[in-house]
Amino acid sequence: MRKDLRFGVIGWGYWGPKIARNLDGLSQASVTMVADLDQKRLASLVVSQPWTKTTSDVNDVWQSDVDGVVIAAPVRTHYRLAKEALLHGKHVLVEKPLTASVVEAEELIALAQERKLTLMVGHTFEYSPAVNELRKLVQSGDLGRIYCVEAERVNLGLFRSDTNVIWDLAPHDVSILLYLFGKVPVQVKVQAHAHLQSHICDIAHLDLEFADEMTAHIHVSWLHPCKIRRVTVIGDARMVVYDDTNPSEMIKVYNKGADVHADPVVSYRYGAITIPHIDWIEPLRLECEDFAHAIRTGEQPRASGDAGLAVVRVLEAAQTALSRQEVATSLAGL
Amino acid sequence: MRKDLRFGVIGWGYWGPKIARNLDGLSQASVTMVADLDQKRLASLVVSQPWTKTTSDVNDVWQSDVDGVVIAAPVRTHYRLAKEALLHGKHVLVEKPLTASVVEAEELIALAQERKLTLMVGHTFEYSPAVNELRKLVQSGDLGRIYCVEAERVNLGLFRSDTNVIWDLAPHDVSILLYLFGKVPVQVKVQAHAHLQSHICDIAHLDLEFADEMTAHIHVSWLHPCKIRRVTVIGDARMVVYDDTNPSEMIKVYNKGADVHADPVVSYRYGAITIPHIDWIEPLRLECEDFAHAIRTGEQPRASGDAGLAVVRVLEAAQTALSRQEVATSLAGL
Amino acid sequence: MRKDLRFGVIGWGYWGPKIARNLDGLSQASVTMVADLDQKRLASLVVSQPWTKTTSDVNDVWQSDVDGVVIAAPVRTHYRLAKEALLHGKHVLVEKPLTASVVEAEELIALAQERKLTLMVGHTFEYSPAVNELRKLVQSGDLGRIYCVEAERVNLGLFRSDTNVIWDLAPHDVSILLYLFGKVPVQVKVQAHAHLQSHICDIAHLDLEFADEMTAHIHVSWLHPCKIRRVTVIGDARMVVYDDTNPSEMIKVYNKGADVHADPVVSYRYGAITIPHIDWIEPLRLECEDFAHAIRTGEQPRASGDAGLAVVRVLEAAQTALSRQEVATSLAGL
Amino acid sequence: MRKDLRFGVIGWGYWGPKIARNLDGLSQASVTMVADLDQKRLASLVVSQPWTKTTSDVNDVWQSDVDGVVIAAPVRTHYRLAKEALLHGKHVLVEKPLTASVVEAEELIALAQERKLTLMVGHTFEYSPAVNELRKLVQSGDLGRIYCVEAERVNLGLFRSDTNVIWDLAPHDVSILLYLFGKVPVQVKVQAHAHLQSHICDIAHLDLEFADEMTAHIHVSWLHPCKIRRVTVIGDARMVVYDDTNPSEMIKVYNKGADVHADPVVSYRYGAITIPHIDWIEPLRLECEDFAHAIRTGEQPRASGDAGLAVVRVLEAAQTALSRQEVATSLAGL
Repeated sequence: MRKDLRFGVIGWGYWGPKIARNLDGLSQASVTMVADLDQKRLASLVVSQPWTKTTSDVNDVWQSDVDGVVIAAPVRTHYRLAKEALLHGKHVLVEKPLTASVVEAEELIALAQERKLTLMVGHTFEYSPAVNELRKLVQSGDLGRIYCVEAERVNLGLFRSDTNVIWDLAPHDVSILLYLFGKVPVQVKVQAHAHLQSHICDIAHLDLEFADEMTAHIHVSWLHPCKIRRVTVIGDARMVVYDDTNPSEMIKVYNKGADVHADPVVSYRYGAITIPHIDWIEPLRLECEDFAHAIRTGEQPRASGDAGLAVVRVLEAAQTALSRQEVATSLAGL
Repeated sequence: MRKDLRFGVIGWGYWGPKIARNLDGLSQASVTMVADLDQKRLASLVVSQPWTKTTSDVNDVWQSDVDGVVIAAPVRTHYRLAKEALLHGKHVLVEKPLTASVVEAEELIALAQERKLTLMVGHTFEYSPAVNELRKLVQSGDLGRIYCVEAERVNLGLFRSDTNVIWDLAPHDVSILLYLFGKVPVQVKVQAHAHLQSHICDIAHLDLEFADEMTAHIHVSWLHPCKIRRVTVIGDARMVVYDDTNPSEMIKVYNKGADVHADPVVSYRYGAITIPHIDWIEPLRLECEDFAHAIRTGEQPRASGDAGLAVVRVLEAAQTALSRQEVATSLAGL
Repeated sequence: MRKDLRFGVIGWGYWGPKIARNLDGLSQASVTMVADLDQKRLASLVVSQPWTKTTSDVNDVWQSDVDGVVIAAPVRTHYRLAKEALLHGKHVLVEKPLTASVVEAEELIALAQERKLTLMVGHTFEYSPAVNELRKLVQSGDLGRIYCVEAERVNLGLFRSDTNVIWDLAPHDVSILLYLFGKVPVQVKVQAHAHLQSHICDIAHLDLEFADEMTAHIHVSWLHPCKIRRVTVIGDARMVVYDDTNPSEMIKVYNKGADVHADPVVSYRYGAITIPHIDWIEPLRLECEDFAHAIRTGEQPRASGDAGLAVVRVLEAAQTALSRQEVATSLAGL
Repeated sequence: MRKDLRFGVIGWGYWGPKIARNLDGLSQASVTMVADLDQKRLASLVVSQPWTKTTSDVNDVWQSDVDGVVIAAPVRTHYRLAKEALLHGKHVLVEKPLTASVVEAEELIALAQERKLTLMVGHTFEYSPAVNELRKLVQSGDLGRIYCVEAERVNLGLFRSDTNVIWDLAPHDVSILLYLFGKVPVQVKVQAHAHLQSHICDIAHLDLEFADEMTAHIHVSWLHPCKIRRVTVIGDARMVVYDDTNPSEMIKVYNKGADVHADPVVSYRYGAITIPHIDWIEPLRLECEDFAHAIRTGEQPRASGDAGLAVVRVLEAAQTALSRQEVATSLAGL
């Protein structure tokens, strides 16, 4: 393996340029080729970085000497592009979610293992210093036994027509949950509604249950006046709010709780709030470093194919719950 | 009817003294008798207001000359106490929820009508100046067509052992919803969990659908580090956040939205935020005034028995949804 | 001394009823007489508490059997009323500021000492649990050496025509400062302006210097859109913000700072923020308890006449600086 | 004049790279040379942009074909470098403050006029969309007659050893004030203290008076736990808070006020708060566009040499007040 790594980026929309900038910032690594079906997207790149090759034919990437490929194209293309990349001997970083189905994800993982190539998914929040601070609190036992988690990710837009709000926003929260606790839910319920576009739900509430009785609730929405990105972890010893929109107070640890002595006697504890200082590094930078490290050493990256599969499993269960007839109680008969 | 009104209060816990203070503040009205099974609760009252009669026998209230009775006792006693009061010719104000079942509420309404007595329920938020400002915005059409409503009412505690979080907190949000829009949902779904006490759910998410496709989501919890009391109304023209914990900015009108021109083309509008000035009056004071007015005039109060029934109807549907086997998708097979 | 204390209140405006309610709440103590020149102010009292004597002649208070007198009348009357009260053998609690001049305050202190009576001033913030939490932090040395303090107390109004904003609002901040640190400034500078009423300044900035080089800045204003009540204490080890308008986060301890190694090399430390839990008790209740305790035991109350004098000394220096249009007025000669 | 503009940047510290990035982003403009005495600072530039010439000898800039020069070096060098640039026929953009003295600024202005070259100062906030929204509110008369302005710019650090906090931070607020109102103060008072470094004040309060009785107060500090950047404009009709740290609510218009009918009768008005939507563009980008536009057309830029001189005039008066330890220094004689 060369120490000097070359990367190709497929898809030059929102994420492509961001990841490319971070890959270029790594030592002994550079983006040497960019592909997008839409030539217009590549125009500004041609002017500002004439030394980077551009193409609208993905085969140019497969035939090139790049070591790794970043796939930042629509979800429905993830499986096909990642498979081709692996078949051409390229290491692969796929934007989240890894694939559109469990079966696709499983095939990619098997293929990468067989070819001894890195398969990674863009679960950027697993590289967030705030999420890692929260994980440390959870893992240390400081929060006690975890009762439940409430996650909110809402804003106005961006509406998409190729996927619903669950597949668009929930991958963030599901990947955070699985990373924080290292366990997967056994059951998923969904409440969801399509308000603006027919049949594409824009607000959803996911309810997850874990084998040990921990529960989690995820609220995602494209239809809300305020930008909220918050995860609340409620333990029997302490409670934590992680607010990604408040840079100076991202993690707030509440030393408070309710104790049940003998049903029904509940007492309350109220203590100090602590806001740890977090040394900030751009998560995408750490993600790109992990990708390069995995390629160079053959070790699994943090956001491995398996991590990607676990998230897709939850999303697929949610989609199934959504499409089946759901439980509702009509008020007509009351 | 005497112009000088006398009231009896049954139940001297949290709400009883608050309502009594407001009734005493009305002109030509006074609380002349207070009943509670627990003599100790009445002790301080005996010292501070020796002129008020106290008793632990509710029959003393029925036999007294009070015109109206306030029932601020546990929910399971509402029906029985209100019925007795009406049978003894007393006007009645019952704390929310009106009763523990639809059938009980219907019987009380019929009885009050038959005896030409006032039956009122303590939906205090219907008298909140902020809720009425919000209602004016909704009714004026300024918000456009309403897509959906998100209501949150969470805090640490107060846990109860005689009822779950839905019956304890959701009456507030359901009564606000019905009052804002003047229509009832046709369907209710529930996601709920019991973390601290077995079989008493302490976190619940209610999902309501209305005949005209408006949806509403209510999140109530006794298990959260922060006190949140917020209702977000999302129209196609404007969106409003009503935050009951922020006295100086209770109502925030966002002149923003997303417009669907032709599926899938969505565009966004961003305009000014407006925070109307609200002249504050204690809602409980207005509620007590309405009770006295209804007694004197025979008119229906705003928070009438019918309003109380409508809320109980939703709560009972939610309870039914909760107790039935719910839809969930197991991840086992994926 | 009787264990059962009787109090008279002179002045039934904003503070009078508040203090009376708290005195009445003490065990074995009650307000038995209220005086105000304006009979109309006493009218509601006559109705609601017919057992309390009311009068518009202050001599009725002097001749009564009350043990202690609360003076909640305009500042210009404090000296005369307090002196008469002491001469009639009554213990005295005077609203802040104690008097309109240093010489008046000194005379009252001497008189109270001579007659062995309690003289107390209404420095309510000295009884605030948040201020006492802050004082504990200062006194413990946790903040290191204190560089400076920034105090802000601004809002729209309430404009007064009998006194300026310095005498109206700064007593709060000056009393907090002197209580926190137990030392008095040696120099006061003032920047002040009269915008609405001629010759009555409505915005003022006081700059205080202490003998040990600690500095303090007080910003008071009647002419501001927002209500701000904040004291920031800046030590070389830690910094604290006390925000009286934020009940859930009144004290915020910032473990951060700048260190000078060798001029000009400055380095920065950034650590956690801690928000201690504060058990809240109404400061006025604690103030009234201290008054009763001082009367019963003969001990000096926390907000003693001497504390009142120290505050008046600073206010008088500020007033002198203001009227002389000087840069600074030394407190040494006062 | 060529349509294609070439720029040189002198000083590659904090501001240099930011301005260079924005100049490069202009159409038909580019940075072709960068100078810094410290070769190490230029090292990364040599790697990332090998086509840009670098030098540690400022004469290389004077001898080059650049049309305009950006001076982002320490304040004490501004005058000398700008003068040389003008003498070599280069247009000049100098970081704020323009110079270290009034006499220097006057000489540069005269020189630029004589040579028909653009002289501009980096008053970035004059290009801020929020400041311009605020200026529109002031100029339209919506706020009524302006009583006073309160400006705050505080944070922990960055401490400097070559200049005090007045020269470091106050240029921002003074330039905003002069730009908002188009008038200069007639008098300046200062309260300032040096806590960390001897003789270099790190906290300062400037008090400005204008001929029409408007007043302004500027609070700048390197010694504060929180980052505050706020300007409050108080008119007799409305009041505005401009908070530069709150991106979603930068400008808040309070429709409230106090009215004096006949001294001493004051009444209060309380109305809605409005938060206008602001289309955000990076101010530095607009500043660079204005520099290029001024060079191409010969028109004066918004942040002209005269604007720079007016700010230096206030700073010099403040410095004089500070060193004389006087109460006030008149600007008349400067």
